[in-house]
Amino acid sequence: MADVITPRTEDYAQWYVDVVRRAKLADYSPVRGSMIIRPNGYAVWERLRDELDRMLKDTGHENAYFPLFIPQSFLAREAKHVEGFAKECAVVTHSRLKMSDDGQSLIVDPDAALEENLIVRPTSETIIWDTYSKWIQSWRDLPILINQWANVVRWEMRTRLFLRTMEFLWQEGHTAHATREEAMTETLLILDIYAHLAEEYMAMPVVKGIKTVSERFAGAEETFCIEALMQDGKALQAGTSHFLGQNFARAFNCQFQNQNNELEYVWASSWGVSTRLIGGLILTHSDDQGLVLPPKLAPTQVVIVPIPKKGQEATILEAAERLARTLKDAGVRVKLDASEAQRPGWKFSEYEVQGVPIRLAIGARDVENGTIEMARRDTFEKTSVPQDALAGVVRDTLDAIQKNLFERALAYRANLTTRVDSLEEFTEVLESKGGFLLAHWDGTAETEARIKEQTKATIRCIPLDQEREPGLDMLTGKPSTGRVLFAKAY
Amino acid sequence: MADVITPRTEDYAQWYVDVVRRAKLADYSPVRGSMIIRPNGYAVWERLRDELDRMLKDTGHENAYFPLFIPQSFLAREAKHVEGFAKECAVVTHSRLKMSDDGQSLIVDPDAALEENLIVRPTSETIIWDTYSKWIQSWRDLPILINQWANVVRWEMRTRLFLRTMEFLWQEGHTAHATREEAMTETLLILDIYAHLAEEYMAMPVVKGIKTVSERFAGAEETFCIEALMQDGKALQAGTSHFLGQNFARAFNCQFQNQNNELEYVWASSWGVSTRLIGGLILTHSDDQGLVLPPKLAPTQVVIVPIPKKGQEATILEAAERLARTLKDAGVRVKLDASEAQRPGWKFSEYEVQGVPIRLAIGARDVENGTIEMARRDTFEKTSVPQDALAGVVRDTLDAIQKNLFERALAYRANLTTRVDSLEEFTEVLESKGGFLLAHWDGTAETEARIKEQTKATIRCIPLDQEREPGLDMLTGKPSTGRVLFAKAY
Repeated sequence: MADVITPRTEDYAQWYVDVVRRAKLADYSPVRGSMIIRPNGYAVWERLRDELDRMLKDTGHENAYFPLFIPQSFLAREAKHVEGFAKECAVVTHSRLKMSDDGQSLIVDPDAALEENLIVRPTSETIIWDTYSKWIQSWRDLPILINQWANVVRWEMRTRLFLRTMEFLWQEGHTAHATREEAMTETLLILDIYAHLAEEYMAMPVVKGIKTVSERFAGAEETFCIEALMQDGKALQAGTSHFLGQNFARAFNCQFQNQNNELEYVWASSWGVSTRLIGGLILTHSDDQGLVLPPKLAPTQVVIVPIPKKGQEATILEAAERLARTLKDAGVRVKLDASEAQRPGWKFSEYEVQGVPIRLAIGARDVENGTIEMARRDTFEKTSVPQDALAGVVRDTLDAIQKNLFERALAYRANLTTRVDSLEEFTEVLESKGGFLLAHWDGTAETEARIKEQTKATIRCIPLDQEREPGLDMLTGKPSTGRVLFAKAY
Repeated sequence: MADVITPRTEDYAQWYVDVVRRAKLADYSPVRGSMIIRPNGYAVWERLRDELDRMLKDTGHENAYFPLFIPQSFLAREAKHVEGFAKECAVVTHSRLKMSDDGQSLIVDPDAALEENLIVRPTSETIIWDTYSKWIQSWRDLPILINQWANVVRWEMRTRLFLRTMEFLWQEGHTAHATREEAMTETLLILDIYAHLAEEYMAMPVVKGIKTVSERFAGAEETFCIEALMQDGKALQAGTSHFLGQNFARAFNCQFQNQNNELEYVWASSWGVSTRLIGGLILTHSDDQGLVLPPKLAPTQVVIVPIPKKGQEATILEAAERLARTLKDAGVRVKLDASEAQRPGWKFSEYEVQGVPIRLAIGARDVENGTIEMARRDTFEKTSVPQDALAGVVRDTLDAIQKNLFERALAYRANLTTRVDSLEEFTEVLESKGGFLLAHWDGTAETEARIKEQTKATIRCIPLDQEREPGLDMLTGKPSTGRVLFAKAY
């Protein structure tokens, strides 16, 4: 593992990998495209998961668990769905290995070929709608508001730790409703929850919008998304919420008797966010010194490092322990690192790399003065804090860091969001500073594809919170009803 | 779905399935051997998981996540391990599907055959020890105390909801240590944690013991287990903790420099409990009326059902809401079911089937008298409780139910544990009442196999908490140093 973090200006892609590995968030695995999420990375995922899980439960959702394997024939039921996933899926064809006849190697046992191949789920709409078709008979069985936390597999050729991996962890919600309106309301409720998670917890500003037809989820009638802007001016799709209409209900013949005793197909939504969010978190806040974590998601919010002095080790340690208890009682996630295996300087730099929001250091002088030294990870600012006031100061500082990270990212995004009106300007801005480009578009897939081909920028979304503003498509000159959001994307 | 629960005396196996399905814990899935864990079942799993996760974190363990897929060659590295798992594993051989040439069906794309097959993990020792071999260089890198919550797949031919399924959810801990003693201490610490989880939370008494050689985990040097006794007199292996010695370190060449600067193989433990525990929970406590849940694991501990009376609906509902808030504030997981879609009688029987420990019913008379009717799920006892005293009474009653379930199960087990000294007696007791049989055994795999063949009973474990007691093997007459625990098992 590289011990040094490559500066962002030198090689942004390498910087990202260095931060992930030096902060011990994740590691490559022997299976190409898969990763190992290390304890530091998994702890961040647990905090994200717990916050989102709470919000989902507060809005009436329940967790369940559906099988990992999907019969191959299920995929084929929804035409667009199979088109979207058949080309990148892991196929289980056998249920046994055996020793080769020469006893030298392990091979699949041809006698254990499956009658029907099984697909490792790339997403679970098909198996879930097959199940719902058995659970749902009447309007009384609706709505169903189910979420699952699971692993999924998509056979990606070009992978990057957290951002795009063959296997990833996510939650996928699958809801069933009696009416179109209800399903749409659910789709948008989840979009709001995702935006809240991103902005309030991840301190990552997002644009809520609608995907164009060509960027829609395979099988959806409408895909909504949250899009964030990374420090290198590229966009990251951070979460999607799909209005599925009656597509999957039709494919799996899921009908219900409505209140007028008529049979009707059930309306659906599905939605998900994944471990990709951790990639977004890193790309939004981290710096050349390593990871920067928003306090609300930091597994360790405060680390206390005692600075030993000969003969006073015990007194210093005692003070450190007392202050750690004070902070813990105040609800702060605090870690005291009193290990003697490493020197304080080493610890300072290690916790900096790992993104701990606040570092406290206490030495002999501090014990004497009743103070402790506090350093902020986001600004590197150092102050001396009276021990009596520590809990309050720490809590306020954690809030201030959370706020600062969000505002910094917001200012960054504002600075990198440009309204452009011609293709020349578009290309020029895209090359010189990148970022979000708000431009007019005539609404056709053809124009969208041509712009993508010429510039590598895609339409990230049609923003929801935007005034209607008539204009002309920058490529074709045809009329447009409003600007859409372009960017190069992860 | 059957609406009636088959009585236990009539058909115990069917009773089990009926309880699982009527209580909406799980459902069969279209993939043979896989199950769908429904919200009611998953909520119990979440409670089990959260309690165990807390205990593991309190003892210094961290969570991580390793890949679902294991290269086929990894399995082959540890001889016994591959023997144990190669015959029942899901093999991924292709990464793509395509339409057949006639355009009629979806087939695996022969061009997308993998260079090396991937195995869906049946357990993760191999991929984890491959990783540890990269992480560990020196004694300073030890111990590693990692746990993961994951799904695993073992190709079982005969499956039963929760008890034995092709895919199941579990946690698997994998620890690395500098010394044999440390690894053994860890193995036994986890065994104690599992026993605590079973007895204190599941109210399910367990015997801690050592597995015989033939029942050992494939690749372990010693397997410890907790064994519980189900209501039908059969045993259930509820959790295992393995002392792996240096077997996997050798297989994956994982050495470390010890404090004397010598290279040594790392010592290991691994341990797991799974969704099988939910099967154990059901088989231990449930009755002909349906599920019975210990309060500590019940997602809903108390349900309040208002009994409407014409003209007084609002007053009754108001009282019910007030009491629900009181209970919630007292930390009780309470649900108020005021829905008008179903009648109170229907609700009573539904929550009984679902195993809610306490049912409260409030009608006009109760409002008048300032009382509420309380019914216990475990004893069906009904009492009228003054509303003022409700929170205290409910908490005490939840404790009493938890205690009663454990003591009931303990008495049941005591009654079904028999010391036998001859094979005739052994067979007779096994057939007439089943249960645990404590008998002498000469310590050989041969005798063990013969007894199994003749009686279908296996040695569940060599109990840890047992006096040494010399005796004679009931089959061979050879000397034995103590009794071992026999039973027919799930």
